[in-house]
Amino acid sequence: MTHSFAPLKNDTFIRALLRQPTDYTPLWLMRQAGRYLPEYREVRQRAGSFMGLATNPDWATAVTLQPIDRFGLDAAILFSDILTIPDAMGLGLTFAEGEGPRFAHPVQDEAAVKALTVPDMDRLRYVFDAVTQIRTELAGRVPLIGFAGSPWTLACYMVQGGGSTDHHRVKTMMYRRPDLMHRILEINAAAVAAYLNAQIDAGAQAVMLFDSWGGALADGNYQRFSLHYMRSVIGRLQRSKHGVPVPCIVFTKGGGPWLEQIAASGADALGLDWTVNLGEARTRVGDRIGLQGNLDPAVLFAEPAQIRAEVERTLHSYAAAGSGLDGHVFNLGHGISQHTPPEAVAALVEAVHDISRQMRQG
Amino acid sequence: MTHSFAPLKNDTFIRALLRQPTDYTPLWLMRQAGRYLPEYREVRQRAGSFMGLATNPDWATAVTLQPIDRFGLDAAILFSDILTIPDAMGLGLTFAEGEGPRFAHPVQDEAAVKALTVPDMDRLRYVFDAVTQIRTELAGRVPLIGFAGSPWTLACYMVQGGGSTDHHRVKTMMYRRPDLMHRILEINAAAVAAYLNAQIDAGAQAVMLFDSWGGALADGNYQRFSLHYMRSVIGRLQRSKHGVPVPCIVFTKGGGPWLEQIAASGADALGLDWTVNLGEARTRVGDRIGLQGNLDPAVLFAEPAQIRAEVERTLHSYAAAGSGLDGHVFNLGHGISQHTPPEAVAALVEAVHDISRQMRQG
Repeated sequence: MTHSFAPLKNDTFIRALLRQPTDYTPLWLMRQAGRYLPEYREVRQRAGSFMGLATNPDWATAVTLQPIDRFGLDAAILFSDILTIPDAMGLGLTFAEGEGPRFAHPVQDEAAVKALTVPDMDRLRYVFDAVTQIRTELAGRVPLIGFAGSPWTLACYMVQGGGSTDHHRVKTMMYRRPDLMHRILEINAAAVAAYLNAQIDAGAQAVMLFDSWGGALADGNYQRFSLHYMRSVIGRLQRSKHGVPVPCIVFTKGGGPWLEQIAASGADALGLDWTVNLGEARTRVGDRIGLQGNLDPAVLFAEPAQIRAEVERTLHSYAAAGSGLDGHVFNLGHGISQHTPPEAVAALVEAVHDISRQMRQG
Repeated sequence: MTHSFAPLKNDTFIRALLRQPTDYTPLWLMRQAGRYLPEYREVRQRAGSFMGLATNPDWATAVTLQPIDRFGLDAAILFSDILTIPDAMGLGLTFAEGEGPRFAHPVQDEAAVKALTVPDMDRLRYVFDAVTQIRTELAGRVPLIGFAGSPWTLACYMVQGGGSTDHHRVKTMMYRRPDLMHRILEINAAAVAAYLNAQIDAGAQAVMLFDSWGGALADGNYQRFSLHYMRSVIGRLQRSKHGVPVPCIVFTKGGGPWLEQIAASGADALGLDWTVNLGEARTRVGDRIGLQGNLDPAVLFAEPAQIRAEVERTLHSYAAAGSGLDGHVFNLGHGISQHTPPEAVAALVEAVHDISRQMRQG
């Protein structure tokens, strides 16, 4: 299927990912469409459940556009969840109110691993429909980011059967039955690649891999069980559409120890959490990759003047590497908190645009 | 008060912290006295509550010695909790079953901060009594480690009022009212220094600062709000007792980005979590400090042969820096899980002693 979309008016985000010069530093926020916005909570209530919202392209479109309408952000990101893939594999996803995700059929023994297959992408049609509808309604205002969980991060939920703090079950499988773990990760990698390529076909102009739990792995195992499979996904992605590059961002939360190796994964840009010093990260990875991050989301609980000071500090830390401000997409180092006052986001957007423009001029 | 204790028979742990040669790599495990041991659960049940156990020197002594009696570990660590200090400050600590710590009077406004003072160490007498009793009953078998939470980590609990995943309240105070935050941290640093010095007077032969939540801080804030106050504690510690060195270990979970700076804190040794490569850490910090860590606790869910292979990998990664195996205390990268089979610990102890001895010989 070929779509015809309006031309892109603001390509600052795409240019920054590709390390091309821009007039200011673009920004978007992980989980920018979400509970901190009253207009989101209103739609969420009408939808009845999280999955009810995520599986309805009209509603998914509505909430994706909310932060774009409200703030001058430089990219939209598909409203969805990383667990749509294991749900399409038949694991039976539900979100209990206030409890996080649960799978009715977690993958905890050899038989369950053997039964696992790459899901038919038709079962994820609602996601691709949402992508196309969002891209259409964006009408070229800003680019649309598609996304997926990393193979390892999906496996964490699939084996645990839900969230976890110590990853007890998935790590037990990893250490005791690495063969089963690798089998799951191979299937996940194939599924994630197909899923992201279908999002690109549907209209996504950049894609991001969320490796939320890679940082829970020991050095050595991170490379074998997470990074290896992200590299495998990236190698299978279409990297341009109709001659236009579709950049790919990789974000391992807690991935600070491995930046050089993640930078060599084939991705165009690297997401960073707030423990990393941006200038040191730039020095470590050189000029071969864009960087995205990395304000502590808790800064948004402060006053506008304090937010501005932290933005300034962040931009200066990036510039300290000596190659200017280009190649940087401003973001939080983790998803925005549900307790964030929307006015703080407005102050953040203004500060990033303003200060980064001034710094470039001066 | 001066105590007379039996001479130390096994000083391998102390020697390794001080980077002196040893015949094998010593080990102990964070939270080695705990719920994974049936004999601990038995005492815990008799004590009725966690604080009932921790505040009774007889029981605290009994559970501290349990892992020493069962396994050939090279150090004992006082059974206690990092929250004894805020409890002595009058914050009203309780542990609800299965829910973690709660403070009845959290420090959440200016008045509460102003009312905060360094507690009278007499209110912590039960801790020092336990230290003396444990040291006496150890009879020189292995050294006894005393410990405290870092000023920042204590502040996290004191302001949040309990555990937290996003540190919402404490970070809000840090960003909005850094003056209040610094006031709390100064008091905590004075209290922690007095507390550790009293443990040393009571018989502790090494001390450790647990900075469990330093890794939640952004680069820059880690240095200002956590490391600075740990340095202040270390500067006030007595570093020897009756002419015998009392080494000090600092452990920031998630502190990988800042190893060089933590190594310059004045501590004798640095605890490392499992995301860090030991050999790279040794290269980064040079020969000026001992290193302690860093096996993923989940390795203990594997079979003995797999545990052995991971121990071998860990020791080799340390040796890869090219200066042998000395200066390393083997440990987990985090507390042992309550789900750990005790037999796995026996296999670990044997593997560490055995392989590290062989590697040194050959």
